[in-house]
Amino acid sequence: MKQLRFTFTQINDFIGQALLSLRFPEKDALLIAQLMTQAEFQGSDGHGIMRLPPYTKRILSGGINLNPNIKVIKEKLATALIDGDNAMGHLVMHRATQLAIEKAKNTGIAWVGSQFSNHAGPASLYAKMALEHDMIGLYFAVGNANHLPPWGGLDMLLSTNPIAAAIPALEEPPIVLDMATTVAAYGKVKAKAQKGEMMPEGWMIDKEGKPLLDPTRSDEGFLLPIGGYKGYGLSLVVGILAGSLNGAAMGKAVIDFNKDYKTTTNTGQAIAIIDPNAFGEIVDFKRSIDQLIRDIKNSQRMPHVDKIWLPGEQSHEKTAYHMMHGVELAAPLIEQLNQLAVQLHIKPLQ
Amino acid sequence: MKQLRFTFTQINDFIGQALLSLRFPEKDALLIAQLMTQAEFQGSDGHGIMRLPPYTKRILSGGINLNPNIKVIKEKLATALIDGDNAMGHLVMHRATQLAIEKAKNTGIAWVGSQFSNHAGPASLYAKMALEHDMIGLYFAVGNANHLPPWGGLDMLLSTNPIAAAIPALEEPPIVLDMATTVAAYGKVKAKAQKGEMMPEGWMIDKEGKPLLDPTRSDEGFLLPIGGYKGYGLSLVVGILAGSLNGAAMGKAVIDFNKDYKTTTNTGQAIAIIDPNAFGEIVDFKRSIDQLIRDIKNSQRMPHVDKIWLPGEQSHEKTAYHMMHGVELAAPLIEQLNQLAVQLHIKPLQ
Repeated sequence: MKQLRFTFTQINDFIGQALLSLRFPEKDALLIAQLMTQAEFQGSDGHGIMRLPPYTKRILSGGINLNPNIKVIKEKLATALIDGDNAMGHLVMHRATQLAIEKAKNTGIAWVGSQFSNHAGPASLYAKMALEHDMIGLYFAVGNANHLPPWGGLDMLLSTNPIAAAIPALEEPPIVLDMATTVAAYGKVKAKAQKGEMMPEGWMIDKEGKPLLDPTRSDEGFLLPIGGYKGYGLSLVVGILAGSLNGAAMGKAVIDFNKDYKTTTNTGQAIAIIDPNAFGEIVDFKRSIDQLIRDIKNSQRMPHVDKIWLPGEQSHEKTAYHMMHGVELAAPLIEQLNQLAVQLHIKPLQ
Repeated sequence: MKQLRFTFTQINDFIGQALLSLRFPEKDALLIAQLMTQAEFQGSDGHGIMRLPPYTKRILSGGINLNPNIKVIKEKLATALIDGDNAMGHLVMHRATQLAIEKAKNTGIAWVGSQFSNHAGPASLYAKMALEHDMIGLYFAVGNANHLPPWGGLDMLLSTNPIAAAIPALEEPPIVLDMATTVAAYGKVKAKAQKGEMMPEGWMIDKEGKPLLDPTRSDEGFLLPIGGYKGYGLSLVVGILAGSLNGAAMGKAVIDFNKDYKTTTNTGQAIAIIDPNAFGEIVDFKRSIDQLIRDIKNSQRMPHVDKIWLPGEQSHEKTAYHMMHGVELAAPLIEQLNQLAVQLHIKPLQ
């Protein structure tokens, strides 16, 4: 009988061992493993341990630089552009975020962009790094596959280009928004297909503009942007800020990393860090966020609504629950990971 | 027979004369008139000359400081907080934007927030000020009336909190996004009511969660956020960045300026300016935006779609058309403005 629940240490060690076996330097393997495990534990399971097999495939295909020279290639007082040298995105955006935090202490706000980065996991991971410094983090990324045409169009020139924002509170948990600019992230479509379920109307349309409900036919249609043409505009702007501005891939230049495991993706991301101390007393700001959170939670509710959630609250509760009880992995995923363990000569998740 | 079309100079002069009659200093009257006329001519008619009567009502009620001391009260290298001293928002955000542009030249990015500001017209006005400096402008504001509850709630704690982004291109017109985080801006609901039309499903719901289609019953329901809970999160984050961070009104503290013409609104806004030169050669960036625009415009189209629009393209075309042919004002609005002219002892529009 397979064990279905795993502790943070078990997941973290498994990923770390896999990455070491793939010949990442130890420090890098540990950092990537920690960020991927954090994603898994906060409920961003589409960016957690299930990414290890496709990452491995890309690494073994030569699509990732294991010994990159990640460096700042342009810099001003409050900005920097980082060349990720085709490293794992986690390493690039961890570096970018640390740099932005340091700069923001001095300048009040800092913005650091990346080029030649790769998929870096959930957007909120990096925005949240601001919180322990009592700062606000904003994150923007170009998604790694285009599933969105311009409004009224058929050519898939845009991706799910996500936005994340992390805002510190005093006694309440922080507000953490992490959203694709499409109604559904593409990972959710893949999850529906895996479970053999239909998609709700509003996630995707086909080339005639009719609702597409069967996730196994997702190649025949597109994701829908939030708010119709507004989400198209938002996805475009996020893509420009995270991609075009950094000389990274955007529009036609975006590689579909689900189909091409070898070509350099030239992924672009951006992190902005704002120091609330630059605008007032940090304790006053955090207290005002507490008050806002409480006013929202205490709002009268619509019929049949049990609870009003703040952005990030569910992830916060999931993290706490998973740290206590472990995360449950589906049996087919465990099976896939254990095959990977055999391939990489590491101990199985068992 | 009333003249229904007016030139830029006619509209601009009328607003300017009205503001002078209300005892604004000449320089301020001219600047506000110019920004309001620009809004009218770019097709943001909900923020154009039709705002003059409610602005006048607020000014005559003592709700606006005509001789404000607009000043920077907190400052770091790349940030500033401006106390608007209850001035017209146009004056505050014009000042904030000029300061952000100056700072960004030095630091690569700058972020300037306001407190004790007021309604400042369409979000895009300020974001677009970056363009003549070959910079990117991002604008965030707390709306001046709460029409949005948290997702699942009934208490109207949030507003339409808009986002604008202006991005320079080389030969193509710039990309300019200007959007409320609700499906419809409240001004659009008011416009439907004025025209005696029903609203489409998806704009508003009633307190039971059922679609609300009659705009004259808008007080019985709420606006819907874009993308459901995502738009709720986005509106909240925009409100925090533009309001809470600046010590400005947010949540319960927001005054409904359609009902209360006297109380200081303590409106908060924020402008961020990014210098693309800090990330690469400006000409390369602008050329990449041209290419993106062309790829989008040349996209294959869905059936029955004649043209694919870029964000801001319609405003751009409207401005050009209106500059050549003048803007058309509805007869009831002209009537209302001419009554105002009598009240303020200025020459009527015509």
